[in-house]
Amino acid sequence: MAILLDTDAEADAWRTALAGLDPTLEIRSWPEVGDPREIEFALVWRPRTPDFAAFPLLRGIFNLGAGVERLLKRRDLPESVPIIRLVDPVGLTGPMTEYVLWQVLRLHRRGPELEAMQREKRWDELTYPLARDRRVGILGQGVLGSDAAARLIALDFDVAGWSRRPKPLPGGRNFAGEAELPAFLARSEILVVLLPLTADTAGLHDARRFALLPRGAGIVNAARGGIIVDADLLAALDSGQIGHATLDVFHEEPLPAGHPFWTHPQVTVTPHVASLTHAETAAPIVLAGIAALRAGRQPADTVDRKTGY
Amino acid sequence: MAILLDTDAEADAWRTALAGLDPTLEIRSWPEVGDPREIEFALVWRPRTPDFAAFPLLRGIFNLGAGVERLLKRRDLPESVPIIRLVDPVGLTGPMTEYVLWQVLRLHRRGPELEAMQREKRWDELTYPLARDRRVGILGQGVLGSDAAARLIALDFDVAGWSRRPKPLPGGRNFAGEAELPAFLARSEILVVLLPLTADTAGLHDARRFALLPRGAGIVNAARGGIIVDADLLAALDSGQIGHATLDVFHEEPLPAGHPFWTHPQVTVTPHVASLTHAETAAPIVLAGIAALRAGRQPADTVDRKTGY
Repeated sequence: MAILLDTDAEADAWRTALAGLDPTLEIRSWPEVGDPREIEFALVWRPRTPDFAAFPLLRGIFNLGAGVERLLKRRDLPESVPIIRLVDPVGLTGPMTEYVLWQVLRLHRRGPELEAMQREKRWDELTYPLARDRRVGILGQGVLGSDAAARLIALDFDVAGWSRRPKPLPGGRNFAGEAELPAFLARSEILVVLLPLTADTAGLHDARRFALLPRGAGIVNAARGGIIVDADLLAALDSGQIGHATLDVFHEEPLPAGHPFWTHPQVTVTPHVASLTHAETAAPIVLAGIAALRAGRQPADTVDRKTGY
Repeated sequence: MAILLDTDAEADAWRTALAGLDPTLEIRSWPEVGDPREIEFALVWRPRTPDFAAFPLLRGIFNLGAGVERLLKRRDLPESVPIIRLVDPVGLTGPMTEYVLWQVLRLHRRGPELEAMQREKRWDELTYPLARDRRVGILGQGVLGSDAAARLIALDFDVAGWSRRPKPLPGGRNFAGEAELPAFLARSEILVVLLPLTADTAGLHDARRFALLPRGAGIVNAARGGIIVDADLLAALDSGQIGHATLDVFHEEPLPAGHPFWTHPQVTVTPHVASLTHAETAAPIVLAGIAALRAGRQPADTVDRKTGY
C-alpha cells in the first residue's frame, strides 16, 4: 500500500520529512500515482488529482494546512473517507500566534501612525492605553484563536472571544452565537478574525457588521479573504469607521495588482504568510494520524463535513 | 513637610494621581516651591530645579522614569540623599515588553521586506524559521530585559541574555561580563538593547561590536541612543553586516531633521515611545517608596551611584 503526496507547496520537503521518519513508506508524488488501487492515504494541498474516487481503497485524506474550505468544495470526495486537517502546535499554531501578536501590538501601539511620522520626519510623543485598558476581540475560538487569545491575555489585554457555541476563555470573556455577536463586536477595538471559511462565515464582515465595531477599530484578518466583503471594508475605511485593516488573506490570491487594498493608506497587505505549513514539524503529526486510522481510531482533527471545519 | 513635583511631562496627571491616593499630601509644582526647608521629597523628570542642595531636609529624589543617567550627571545631588528610579510592572515594564515583542516579531517575520513588497505590489511567499530556531539576544537582564526575555522564551524563541554579572535566565542562556560578550553577540540574530546608559555602556555598539554579530542581524535599541555609535551603525547597515535597525532612542532627541536615520531604508525610527511613564500606575509605587524612606527603610529601586543604575 502507498501514500499519495499531492501538494503544490514544499513537495520535496514533505517527501524528505516523511521518509526521514519512516524509510519503509512508499510515497508516490503526483502525477506518478502508479496503481490507484494501492493508494491508502492521500496527503494533499491544492491537489491536482482529478478524482479521489479513482482510489478505491483510500482510507484517509490529510489536508496539509489548517483550512479545508477549498477541499470540501470538491464533488469527488468519497463520503466514507475521513478528511483530516492539520493541527500543528509548533509549525502552524505558533507562527499564527506570532503574526497575531505582531499585528495586534502594532495596532495597539499605533504603528501605522508612527510609520507615517517617520516618512514625514515628525517627532511626537504618541501615547497609548495600557494593555489592560485595550479591548481585543478574537473572532473564532478554535485551535488558532484560543492560542492567540491566551497569549494576549498573558500580556494583560482585555480579551474577548467569540465562538459558535459557548466556550470558556480563561482570563477573558466568551461571547457565543449569532445573538451575542453584536455585543462582542461593539467592544472590539482591535478585532482579529480567525474563523474558518464556511457557508456561515462567508461575507460575515459586511457594512452592517463593520458598523457595530467601535469607531476607528482595527481589524486583522488572518483567516480567509471570503469572510470579508471588500467593498464594504473599503467604505468603512474611507468613512473612518475602521481605522486600519491588516489583511493576510484575500478573495483572490495573489491579490490582483489593480486591487485598491495594495495602495490604501489604511490597509496593510501581507501575502498569506501568517502561518505556513512546516513539513518538518507536521510530518510526524500526519504519520500519527495514519497510524490512528490503521488502528481503527479516528484522528483528533477529523473534519466535520456538516460544519465545514 | 511637602513634596516637590518637578517634571516636564504629565505634571497634571501626576498631581491628580498623587492627590487621589492621599489628599493630605502637600504637593508643590515647580516653580512654586515655597519654603525650600519644607521640601522632604522631590519627584522629578528632567527637573528645572537648579540646585537640589537648596533643600536642606530632602530625604529622597524619585526619578519618574527608568533611566537615571541624566539625573546622575548633575553636580548638585546631595550625597546622602537616595535616588530612586521608577520600576512599574504595569505602567513601564509591560509597555516595554510590548514594544520589544512587536519589534522582534516584525524582524523575525521579515516585516521590513513585507512592507517593501506591498509598496511594489509584489506577492511572494516569504518563509521564516520557527521561533525555536531563531536566536534572540537580550542585552541587559535588568527588570526590563528579564521580562522581555521571559516573554520571548514563552513564545519558544532561542533566547540568550547578557548581564554584567552571571544571572540565571530560566529557559534561556545567560552570558556574563566583558569576556562572554563576543560569544553572546555572535549568536544574536536579533539583538535587543535594554542596558542602562553608563560610563561602561556609552558607545558600546561600535564597528567592532557590530562585526561580531551574525551577518544581516537585526538590532532593536529601546534603551538609550548613547549606547550606539551612529556612524558605525550606518556603515554596518550599508555593508549589510546589520540588516535592519529599529531605534526608539537617539543621541539627540527629537532626532534632528537632517539625521540619516530618518530616511535610511533599513532603519525604523520611533520617537522614544517604547515605554512612557503612566502616572496612574506609578503614583502608588512612588508613595510606597516615600513610606519606606519615612519608616527608615531603603526602597527596592534605590540607584547605586557607582554602577549608575
